[in-house]
Amino acid sequence: MRFFQKNLTFFLVLVFSVSVAQNRKIIHIPDIDGYQTLKCDFHMHTVFSDGDVWPTVRVTEAWKEGLDAIAITDHIEYRPHADDVVSDHNRSYQIAKPLADELKMILIKGTEITRSMPPGHFNALFISDANPIDTKDVFDAIGEAQKQGAFLLWNHPGWKAQQPDTTLWWEEHTKLYNNKMLNGIEVFNGDEFYPEALGWAKEKNLTLFGNTDSHDPIDGRKLRTMTLVFAKDKTAEGIREALNNRRTIAYSENRLAGDAGLLTKFFFASLKFDHAPLKLVMKGRAVVYIQNNSDITYELELEKPNPDYKAPEKLILKANEVTPVILTGKTQNVNDLKELTITYKVNNVFVAGNQVFNVTFNFRNN
Amino acid sequence: MRFFQKNLTFFLVLVFSVSVAQNRKIIHIPDIDGYQTLKCDFHMHTVFSDGDVWPTVRVTEAWKEGLDAIAITDHIEYRPHADDVVSDHNRSYQIAKPLADELKMILIKGTEITRSMPPGHFNALFISDANPIDTKDVFDAIGEAQKQGAFLLWNHPGWKAQQPDTTLWWEEHTKLYNNKMLNGIEVFNGDEFYPEALGWAKEKNLTLFGNTDSHDPIDGRKLRTMTLVFAKDKTAEGIREALNNRRTIAYSENRLAGDAGLLTKFFFASLKFDHAPLKLVMKGRAVVYIQNNSDITYELELEKPNPDYKAPEKLILKANEVTPVILTGKTQNVNDLKELTITYKVNNVFVAGNQVFNVTFNFRNN
Amino acid sequence: MRFFQKNLTFFLVLVFSVSVAQNRKIIHIPDIDGYQTLKCDFHMHTVFSDGDVWPTVRVTEAWKEGLDAIAITDHIEYRPHADDVVSDHNRSYQIAKPLADELKMILIKGTEITRSMPPGHFNALFISDANPIDTKDVFDAIGEAQKQGAFLLWNHPGWKAQQPDTTLWWEEHTKLYNNKMLNGIEVFNGDEFYPEALGWAKEKNLTLFGNTDSHDPIDGRKLRTMTLVFAKDKTAEGIREALNNRRTIAYSENRLAGDAGLLTKFFFASLKFDHAPLKLVMKGRAVVYIQNNSDITYELELEKPNPDYKAPEKLILKANEVTPVILTGKTQNVNDLKELTITYKVNNVFVAGNQVFNVTFNFRNN
Amino acid sequence: MRFFQKNLTFFLVLVFSVSVAQNRKIIHIPDIDGYQTLKCDFHMHTVFSDGDVWPTVRVTEAWKEGLDAIAITDHIEYRPHADDVVSDHNRSYQIAKPLADELKMILIKGTEITRSMPPGHFNALFISDANPIDTKDVFDAIGEAQKQGAFLLWNHPGWKAQQPDTTLWWEEHTKLYNNKMLNGIEVFNGDEFYPEALGWAKEKNLTLFGNTDSHDPIDGRKLRTMTLVFAKDKTAEGIREALNNRRTIAYSENRLAGDAGLLTKFFFASLKFDHAPLKLVMKGRAVVYIQNNSDITYELELEKPNPDYKAPEKLILKANEVTPVILTGKTQNVNDLKELTITYKVNNVFVAGNQVFNVTFNFRNN
Repeated sequence: MRFFQKNLTFFLVLVFSVSVAQNRKIIHIPDIDGYQTLKCDFHMHTVFSDGDVWPTVRVTEAWKEGLDAIAITDHIEYRPHADDVVSDHNRSYQIAKPLADELKMILIKGTEITRSMPPGHFNALFISDANPIDTKDVFDAIGEAQKQGAFLLWNHPGWKAQQPDTTLWWEEHTKLYNNKMLNGIEVFNGDEFYPEALGWAKEKNLTLFGNTDSHDPIDGRKLRTMTLVFAKDKTAEGIREALNNRRTIAYSENRLAGDAGLLTKFFFASLKFDHAPLKLVMKGRAVVYIQNNSDITYELELEKPNPDYKAPEKLILKANEVTPVILTGKTQNVNDLKELTITYKVNNVFVAGNQVFNVTFNFRNN
Repeated sequence: MRFFQKNLTFFLVLVFSVSVAQNRKIIHIPDIDGYQTLKCDFHMHTVFSDGDVWPTVRVTEAWKEGLDAIAITDHIEYRPHADDVVSDHNRSYQIAKPLADELKMILIKGTEITRSMPPGHFNALFISDANPIDTKDVFDAIGEAQKQGAFLLWNHPGWKAQQPDTTLWWEEHTKLYNNKMLNGIEVFNGDEFYPEALGWAKEKNLTLFGNTDSHDPIDGRKLRTMTLVFAKDKTAEGIREALNNRRTIAYSENRLAGDAGLLTKFFFASLKFDHAPLKLVMKGRAVVYIQNNSDITYELELEKPNPDYKAPEKLILKANEVTPVILTGKTQNVNDLKELTITYKVNNVFVAGNQVFNVTFNFRNN
Repeated sequence: MRFFQKNLTFFLVLVFSVSVAQNRKIIHIPDIDGYQTLKCDFHMHTVFSDGDVWPTVRVTEAWKEGLDAIAITDHIEYRPHADDVVSDHNRSYQIAKPLADELKMILIKGTEITRSMPPGHFNALFISDANPIDTKDVFDAIGEAQKQGAFLLWNHPGWKAQQPDTTLWWEEHTKLYNNKMLNGIEVFNGDEFYPEALGWAKEKNLTLFGNTDSHDPIDGRKLRTMTLVFAKDKTAEGIREALNNRRTIAYSENRLAGDAGLLTKFFFASLKFDHAPLKLVMKGRAVVYIQNNSDITYELELEKPNPDYKAPEKLILKANEVTPVILTGKTQNVNDLKELTITYKVNNVFVAGNQVFNVTFNFRNN
Repeated sequence: MRFFQKNLTFFLVLVFSVSVAQNRKIIHIPDIDGYQTLKCDFHMHTVFSDGDVWPTVRVTEAWKEGLDAIAITDHIEYRPHADDVVSDHNRSYQIAKPLADELKMILIKGTEITRSMPPGHFNALFISDANPIDTKDVFDAIGEAQKQGAFLLWNHPGWKAQQPDTTLWWEEHTKLYNNKMLNGIEVFNGDEFYPEALGWAKEKNLTLFGNTDSHDPIDGRKLRTMTLVFAKDKTAEGIREALNNRRTIAYSENRLAGDAGLLTKFFFASLKFDHAPLKLVMKGRAVVYIQNNSDITYELELEKPNPDYKAPEKLILKANEVTPVILTGKTQNVNDLKELTITYKVNNVFVAGNQVFNVTFNFRNN
């Protein structure tokens, strides 16, 4: 059953979409700097390329999980269901759009240009028409997307099937980059992380992405791989402006990757500190309670011990919980310290290659 | 990415199906009477009618959840995706079959004959060709299925969209029944229960079914609605023989519906009793430990109190746990009882209409 | 091991309490009316009466679960561990207090006066010394507590062991009440609900309580039974003032009980409504998204259908999720309606006896 | 409230223990070699030393979690609650024993001899009287336990508070060992693992233990640290005989440690293999389904690749699930192989120090 009502004869009429009969989760991720943090996934497939779901499923899934925006990016060149699913390259967007509108999900029109390496696979976002992108030469295809004003990102640059031994930046990428045909790069694709891509992004000012590249239905039990976009407003244009200005952090499996400046703001916006005035002295102790209001657990490791006081070597700031941090004075020096300065590595947050994010807490003492 | 390998030029080749890279749960349900209990779902849809998934998804989902057999039953008459998905009525079976074979899932060829009420919707299982079933007259359609040797069941007989006020058996159903064109009936469809259907099934010897009628991807977090089939062997033929002989119990949302005789065997096959020799006397107590080795929690309520000893009024035999049952002697009579006989209603197990299953425990005393 | 450090010889020294090495959950419950909503449990036991845990466990459990205040209320008259646990009646408070201070949990000094019915069991909160409450006559005991300034509540008034057939208000309760020795009453004790108590509370202006009455360790997986206290500040005095002025709602197993006025504020403070300007017309539809920011799921049932437009019969506003509410126009009348008024019963919220809370949504139309 | 009934006057009587009103989980762990695998925890504390629970809680917790045997091992020398909890050293056993008997839990009488390093902390199991073990000299204490026939194990040998830098075997341990006063050793204590202890155990034929050393209430959500004992029967004597003959495997947080021979039997007893006759040829593939019927997930990593066929580099045999293993032929050689031999390291199973367990699968081919 579903969707039907008896008509005059035996025909059936769609009345309500099922999607609307379900619930939407709330993702707890902080806003920063006056921007709204939009939860986005810009890479996924449907039966219109090699995915296994109808386009509306992508909208429903994302809405239920609490995302704000998605792009369906069916392959131009790879359509294994084409014997049965017959349509042009714009069709999955057209089918998904009315439901996205009803659910107030932002649906970015996109496609995936799918070639062997080099240069590999590229998502073209914010295109107007996917059909003319179906060309023989990859540079023609990317060029057509660029002509339409697309934002172009290199997908899964370290995918083993295309870069089996090392993750390389090829001559073709330099050519694309020099022609402004390469604006962003995936550092996370599904659960894979490409540290090299994070390095290149920093060097060349590429926008960072984390995307699912989903082909199957998405489970929805945990936060999916996402691109966190810091946007002026919750619109497609807001997203575009933020991508153009590289205001993103990539997320996958409780890991973050991004610019250290943005990450610092994001990290502290997630936390609330609570403690009595600290009066740490030799052999004394003080407790600082750190409340993490986000859905991301931070895994901290002490960068270097302080000779005068002891702080926890490991600190797990669990998502949506309060973690007590116990400090103990070791020397007479601590009695006179006006400020306690403690630096931690955040082992699940990356700023360049495999280099992790450092964060410093300053607590006024006495 | 996924599934690709670089070919000589830029073409891509499917290598392994994703399904096999995942895991399969084990459903704990007992075998009875020398039969294997097969976990089956005989009603579901794909993009080839009004479902939202590619046919292989139905196989993968069911395999992962631990099912043994499914039937994909796309509507003959209702194909809202037909502008894009172009094929005949056998196509979803053809696409799903190779994956089912690889995963050793039994895939029953089926279809749904989809008409307004009366007579409503019917699943034809074990058909050979769905195309000739696409006829104008519903009796012709069902007749064609019958000619192919189909097993025919009435789907969701109490669906509000077709039976808004009361769940009725129409003249048309009598006609079908008399012509052996109605062999089974859904008592559970998704999370809906139709007590009337359970009554008719008992009266008319119809085979009972519980099916999901899934259109969207299935979540897989809990046991789906199923038809438990007690089969001589784990084959399509084994299933057919069991359906013909009405050896099924229907399951949905921790409820069961079926024949009291089968249910009694099934219930006791799930349980293991453990206790010291009982010597219940007045003011004494005895404990019987009941281990429920199945994934179904039984909710028992004392049918009527015994004047001589006290047994728990409510007893929840939780799935895969051990429940202690405390008995206490109330009168002198209990000292001489050779047997303690306690009857419970099992409130989540139905035998006819809304009538629940009664079960009696006999414990030797002294 | 635990807690030790080697000393000069072989003695061992407690260094840090284990409690502080664990995390605290955050309970999502709204503040209302400028008050802070404090999550409190005013009834629990330790090894110092018939409980099974050391007093510090009560503090740690409550802190980890996210509560703000507790009272340990060991029985005066019932101390089955007294052969081994030797102390006066103030001891469990004394042991728990330092840890409560460190964790900034509010610990209310209390005790349970434990008599057969009538008048049953009473908690005395905010006492200064439990020892003189140990008297032969129950009125003397309650009188002593009153002299100390205690807040007195009747515990589990419908407990079957004391009120086997009906939940009665005895003459003794009238006497206590007239002497201002009965200020509050439990409507929830553990998972039990006493509708009669809710009625008496309304009639007689008693403060409502929900308490766990825990004897064993508390599991902590779900929200425990609590008294939600709307306090001017997060202090023992703040709680006392709120109890005196009956600003509480009782919570147990996703049910609430309280004054309809407070509940209305509390309910709407949990919710955020989001919709485009509604322009519901005949055969048209409109969607209102309701975001429930609390940890309480509300179960709504349509009070009475409107002849002009259709609203969902059942509406589950799931905790921390967004629920879409679909409205559809049925008649021409709806085209001219300036306001849509929809009244729901909230089946898990009680205002008097078994009478449930009614809530009305008004949406501006056109 | 709880457990009371009104007596003639106002006294209260305990009727039933709460424990029996709850449920017991079933742990899925295989038996091997005709032995029963008993799930045991031989190290835990109560309020009678520095624990935080009443002794009956230890029995109830263990029963609910599905364990077969426990030992309560309160410290002789460290009793921080002694001001309030006044008793001799046998008291916690005496209190727990009746409940253990009722629940058919095996309760081993034990105590912990608690000294600074060397020689550290020792559990004496199967003692008859803990009181005479309270002596000044540690060798006298251990000698008294030995005289009572105790089984003696060294607890948490690598505990940082006692062995801050390296885990050392001291002269005192040699003395104990030579006098047969050291029969076993903990390789897991709570979530800590001591690889050195595993090495010593192998060298010196010590029995391996995994114990919780619980002081607080146990959560029960996941399998606790345990000693798996392969016993001739489910009795205290059966356990003693198995300990004497070193038939144990230690378990903690999804890790195992033990003798390679026992582990091989245990590992294969957990698994069921299912596959069609394998006919792996060059460019062909074959699938073997491995069903893991235990609650332990095995994490396999290919020891070394075979030049002729490809097997998965990583293989996670999830608890209570079926994992497909895909093999693919790479060379012509594979066509003639009569057997496929694949060796994996099991990264969460330890046999000596940090050395992991190796397991070899042999599949008949062609």
